[in-house]
Amino acid sequence: MDLQQTMQDIGRRARAASRLMATASTAAKNDALTAIAAEIRRQRDALIAANGKDLDAARTAGLEAAMLERLTLNEKGIEAMATGLEQVAALPDPVGEITDVRRRPSGIQVGRMRVPLGVIGIIYEARPNVTAEAAALCLKAGNAAILRGGSEAIRSNRAIAVCVHAGLKAAGLPEEATQVIDTTDRAAVGALITMPQYVDVIVPRGGKGLIARVSNEAKVPVIKHLDGNCHIYIDDDADPAKIVSIVENAKTQRYGTCNTAETLLIAYRIAATALPAVAVMLAAKGVEMRCCEESLAILRGAALGEAKLVAAREEDWREEFLAPIIAIKLVAGLDEAIAHINTYSSAHTEAIVTENYTRAMRFLREVDSSSVMVNASTRFADGFEYGLGAEIGISTDKFHARGPVGLEGLTSQKWIVFGNGEVRR
Amino acid sequence: MDLQQTMQDIGRRARAASRLMATASTAAKNDALTAIAAEIRRQRDALIAANGKDLDAARTAGLEAAMLERLTLNEKGIEAMATGLEQVAALPDPVGEITDVRRRPSGIQVGRMRVPLGVIGIIYEARPNVTAEAAALCLKAGNAAILRGGSEAIRSNRAIAVCVHAGLKAAGLPEEATQVIDTTDRAAVGALITMPQYVDVIVPRGGKGLIARVSNEAKVPVIKHLDGNCHIYIDDDADPAKIVSIVENAKTQRYGTCNTAETLLIAYRIAATALPAVAVMLAAKGVEMRCCEESLAILRGAALGEAKLVAAREEDWREEFLAPIIAIKLVAGLDEAIAHINTYSSAHTEAIVTENYTRAMRFLREVDSSSVMVNASTRFADGFEYGLGAEIGISTDKFHARGPVGLEGLTSQKWIVFGNGEVRR
Repeated sequence: MDLQQTMQDIGRRARAASRLMATASTAAKNDALTAIAAEIRRQRDALIAANGKDLDAARTAGLEAAMLERLTLNEKGIEAMATGLEQVAALPDPVGEITDVRRRPSGIQVGRMRVPLGVIGIIYEARPNVTAEAAALCLKAGNAAILRGGSEAIRSNRAIAVCVHAGLKAAGLPEEATQVIDTTDRAAVGALITMPQYVDVIVPRGGKGLIARVSNEAKVPVIKHLDGNCHIYIDDDADPAKIVSIVENAKTQRYGTCNTAETLLIAYRIAATALPAVAVMLAAKGVEMRCCEESLAILRGAALGEAKLVAAREEDWREEFLAPIIAIKLVAGLDEAIAHINTYSSAHTEAIVTENYTRAMRFLREVDSSSVMVNASTRFADGFEYGLGAEIGISTDKFHARGPVGLEGLTSQKWIVFGNGEVRR
Repeated sequence: MDLQQTMQDIGRRARAASRLMATASTAAKNDALTAIAAEIRRQRDALIAANGKDLDAARTAGLEAAMLERLTLNEKGIEAMATGLEQVAALPDPVGEITDVRRRPSGIQVGRMRVPLGVIGIIYEARPNVTAEAAALCLKAGNAAILRGGSEAIRSNRAIAVCVHAGLKAAGLPEEATQVIDTTDRAAVGALITMPQYVDVIVPRGGKGLIARVSNEAKVPVIKHLDGNCHIYIDDDADPAKIVSIVENAKTQRYGTCNTAETLLIAYRIAATALPAVAVMLAAKGVEMRCCEESLAILRGAALGEAKLVAAREEDWREEFLAPIIAIKLVAGLDEAIAHINTYSSAHTEAIVTENYTRAMRFLREVDSSSVMVNASTRFADGFEYGLGAEIGISTDKFHARGPVGLEGLTSQKWIVFGNGEVRR
């Protein structure tokens, strides 16, 4: 097969480039990033023209408005891309960092050194800015990247790749450190995820269908992000001043993000006062409330005007609504809240609102999700908010990396030994 | 299928037990470990009787002597098992450890908490002591374990499982935290490695065939250990006093271990003096030397008596001999040594012998193996020598864990947020 051969060649070139990238100096990597940013600004008109052709084709194909919006690359988006590259250049280089050095009874000193993973395959959908962003993170972490964007963005991605290659070349780094797969053949994905000899990890960024397919078929490790069914638990001892603002922010700041709260759990003992206050805010924002029997009874008794109150069905506890909808359930207390979360959650992000120290600490310890919070909005689950500087994605897995994955998640640690002629007894 | 159903049931019970184990106290886990050790000592005669039946069956089946030796459980082995359990009890509990807490500009404090991986599947071969050892490490790290030992050890493993269950029960922990698959049907392995809903990671411990099969068929992450083709590079500036002792220890202390050196690289400029000195030692130990043309020329000119000198073939550079055989190659210097290693090595462990600071640091940085050493024997690549207390295996992968994997490798880190009512802007 021609495509198989093409993919093998891409893999071989990526593996060779990854060897050079692993030992590239921080200065060379940063030079490349700033050179790519400069090239992106210089090529602004060419990028907009290429993107225009993608948009024309997408409109002709009848793609929906949301998809067209994600596909669009305008002046503002191009400047954001360039700035993003400069921000990655400003981040500390994780590669080569030596930690945990300890002297052992044998006399050797053992420590760990942070090293790149090698070759990262990124599979994404319409957004062309991911091309620059993913290339930048992989580059800074000393990896080679193979990028496979959505077919609808192929002209935009090609144009961005030209800028990335120019920047790499200017910094004396191999252009093959970033390869963009230049075919819309879907079989390319199948090949990319089954080349363990050339690809060390796959990061799929996209809808559930893509991620399920990649997880199921991959023969290499996958950093995957499934859905974000995030919970807020309002404990008996919640501070009333924090309840409404946290729920408002977590649910209504943005409906479509993975760290948006989808289910509200409230302790019985505080429900009579806390729930109506929250519901007034939600009703004012037009959020539909899918309520358990008990919470429905409380809210039907409250004067909520035009509130959209609906009886919750079992499937509502599992749903990532990504919409002005929230599921609401009363629980006996912390134990039931934790049991509910550990049963229904997608293990993305959960928050407790409480002034009780012991229950706060138990929630942090016992809830098995990638981010667990006390008295803070679930919306904080984000690489920038956590101080990672940037993120390649949010992992809902446990292996290797959980939660927001930044530069560190694109690296590993090897063991190093400083000896003085020691031998083992 | 009955077996499929049995495996699903085992998975479901393991998942449920993993929830309880994740929040079990350190005291309860240590109580269980010491109770298992006590039970193993108490059941000594029963263990030896069960093992005797396995040995009888193995002899009848005509298993080779090395296999019978691995299968044997005698008084000394039983005491070592019990002591090993007590050593794991004495290790610090990794679970719940909070690190890297930083205050962010938003006001939240973000940190990480170490948590168990969940359910670990271990697939191993003849050695019954692995049953106790793997159970102990998984238990201490707060995981549930599903153990699948070799069919030739099934009676021994059953008897050990009785002790493990007694200890778990005595400590008030769920017996399902350690399940031993009680069938010799090979399809059980196929089922175990394809249940991502119940199993979070697979650790295969055994021969290449087993590991290749597991890696290829698994639908869950695998911590795998392929071969150990370890190198020693004797640099131009190597201290003569260190060369022979390090090569002697790395090659001849034990021939069959994965951290034994298999290839010796020597810089041209030091070869004329260093190589004959090393060869005298190797010849005295009866080690066959498979030499490149140049090294063969030097050694044929030296007075080595009965030395076994052979011309190396290309495949010798890739071979894990696990025998009194070493491959020897002269190289121009550090660059060629690193290139050779990164091409032929199995990325397990490599060492440089040098007094040159810059080349030592370059070797540490540029050699892409799980353990990289300066002036020390490759034999140190070991969980105990590194201070991990114990190891579940040595990973030759980069993802999640590299090199010796101890308790920490059986855990992950989640993000925790300490807030005070913060919302995202």
